[in-house]
Amino acid sequence: MKTSTHETEIIVDTEVPMVRIIRTFDAPPNKVFRAHTDPELLARWQGPRGTEMRVERYDCRTGGSYRYLHTPCDEVAGEGFEAWFHGSFHEVRPSELIVQTFTFEGFPDHVALEKLVFEDLGDGRTRLVATSLVDSFADRDAFVASGMEHGVREGYERLDELISAGAL
Amino acid sequence: MKTSTHETEIIVDTEVPMVRIIRTFDAPPNKVFRAHTDPELLARWQGPRGTEMRVERYDCRTGGSYRYLHTPCDEVAGEGFEAWFHGSFHEVRPSELIVQTFTFEGFPDHVALEKLVFEDLGDGRTRLVATSLVDSFADRDAFVASGMEHGVREGYERLDELISAGAL
Repeated sequence: MKTSTHETEIIVDTEVPMVRIIRTFDAPPNKVFRAHTDPELLARWQGPRGTEMRVERYDCRTGGSYRYLHTPCDEVAGEGFEAWFHGSFHEVRPSELIVQTFTFEGFPDHVALEKLVFEDLGDGRTRLVATSLVDSFADRDAFVASGMEHGVREGYERLDELISAGAL
Repeated sequence: MKTSTHETEIIVDTEVPMVRIIRTFDAPPNKVFRAHTDPELLARWQGPRGTEMRVERYDCRTGGSYRYLHTPCDEVAGEGFEAWFHGSFHEVRPSELIVQTFTFEGFPDHVALEKLVFEDLGDGRTRLVATSLVDSFADRDAFVASGMEHGVREGYERLDELISAGAL
């Protein structure tokens, strides 16, 4: 299977405590959107390789909410690292926009406001612009230093593979 | 009926695009919290005098959402100004914390992340610290310039009156 992957740009804003992630996919907006809203699809690509995602709830509509878990695939039951995340969906516009909150439960008082914009490039491709806003530069810089970049890039490569395989 | 009111401090942050509102109430945290979570109580104080609040939904729990309308009390049906607002509740911890999103539907792409912290002053009073974070200083300054200060101060005076009347 031939898989083409695109660069993931991760931009640290200089004015406000925000990270901006820009990524192109070889699929139209409705498919890239579905990969973000269907929990069964999402669990097949989100996060770095070697991790497993288990969804407790994922009600991706305006006013809905979500909670999920990332664990290493080779975890020994009860002994491994468990990372729970939760948030609410402020607004969901099909194939266009998702505005949601995001918390890693290891730092329950740190909340990010995330906006995912699905731009139709008009040639069967989509540019995804995902911003994440927090309330201090220290928190933003800690988030960037946490190794999130690796997980984001590898997750999008896994999404490229789903697109190439016709799984969307 | 004697009503004591407190000053409302409205602080514009210099580092991040945030407004911080600080207000003391002569009631313990569980009562001030209930005034924010019970939609029938909320509708009796939120917003400036002369406006009416109608709640479409207000499910104030972690993962819930809300939508409501403010109109002038003397509105001629169909002719007056209608201001709809909606958002989702990221996290609700009884008597302690509400983290929610907020949008005025007149500017549907402007979303604020709001955090309400109910501090127990230990003498039957509560200090409420409400922060509102947006993604640009221009939006934050437009929000402050919109006259929100008047509505916030007068709303809290109406809440003082409910407290004095024993309505909580």
